[in-house]
Amino acid sequence: MASDGATIRHATREDVPIILALIHELAAYENATSSVHATEELLLKNLSFDDKSSTSPEPSFTPGHAKTLLIVAPEGEVCGMGLYFYNFSTWTGTPGIYLEDLYIKPTYRKRGYGKALIKRLAQEVIKAGGSRLAWVCLNWNKPSLEFYASLGATRMNEWVGLRLTDDALTKVAES
Amino acid sequence: MASDGATIRHATREDVPIILALIHELAAYENATSSVHATEELLLKNLSFDDKSSTSPEPSFTPGHAKTLLIVAPEGEVCGMGLYFYNFSTWTGTPGIYLEDLYIKPTYRKRGYGKALIKRLAQEVIKAGGSRLAWVCLNWNKPSLEFYASLGATRMNEWVGLRLTDDALTKVAES
Repeated sequence: MASDGATIRHATREDVPIILALIHELAAYENATSSVHATEELLLKNLSFDDKSSTSPEPSFTPGHAKTLLIVAPEGEVCGMGLYFYNFSTWTGTPGIYLEDLYIKPTYRKRGYGKALIKRLAQEVIKAGGSRLAWVCLNWNKPSLEFYASLGATRMNEWVGLRLTDDALTKVAES
Repeated sequence: MASDGATIRHATREDVPIILALIHELAAYENATSSVHATEELLLKNLSFDDKSSTSPEPSFTPGHAKTLLIVAPEGEVCGMGLYFYNFSTWTGTPGIYLEDLYIKPTYRKRGYGKALIKRLAQEVIKAGGSRLAWVCLNWNKPSLEFYASLGATRMNEWVGLRLTDDALTKVAES
């Protein structure tokens, strides 16, 4: 729970339209609107959901798949999300969490909701026996980088991210 | 199969001592020997293994957990590995693969084994309905960066990796 009474819960299948809307808002913020190819059908197929009633203390999905934490403002609106999956560190030999996307709607910022989601994810890492919460941030997003630094996050400046996608991926697969 | 007849298979529980040895070799190469806290017990607990006989076409583990592909030279030695897990892209709405570690023993390099492992992973991404194989590389590791560029990999220069670990993680979890 955030300090103002906002609540955090795992998403159910009924939340998929809201998740997709939040993904589109985030893409607009990151100047990447044309990159979004996700649809409600793809999210329903490829995300894991909490299918139990909201009073259940434990989500029913299998660890290891992508999940979505939603934050609900006291006013009742779902106003942000943290979409994540479990990763693995060979150095520690333990699972951790990779935060794929963190997003809070602009009108709900400065309430501590981003921190509340990260706090919950840190708790999930510890619950899974891990010691690492990882994510990436655009290098021009100074407000977010300052926020993450204030939480004690380390910048992995020595590492370059790499990706094989689309035609390059197919070419390697068929080589 | 690599061009010289080397074979690729998923690891079983019996391979754990070899996996740990490869992790230690990789750490030495990356000047990170003191960072390795993995043990055989942790790997047995936290990795997924192919428990079926080696003649089975499909591994029996649940998608989503970390898995290890091993490459076995024609001489019979396990000489490299690709340790990976499934990730998720909100932009595409589909799973992909994150390659946590790729390692080929020095005496087995220049045989195309690294490429054979990446090719197999690209095929696994496509099999999972995804379109993205991702990993990171140390920015001073020029031979690897050149090799990845030759495969058509894109460098994610606009992104900074972030991590919350150990005391900082605990502090946020308990805040």
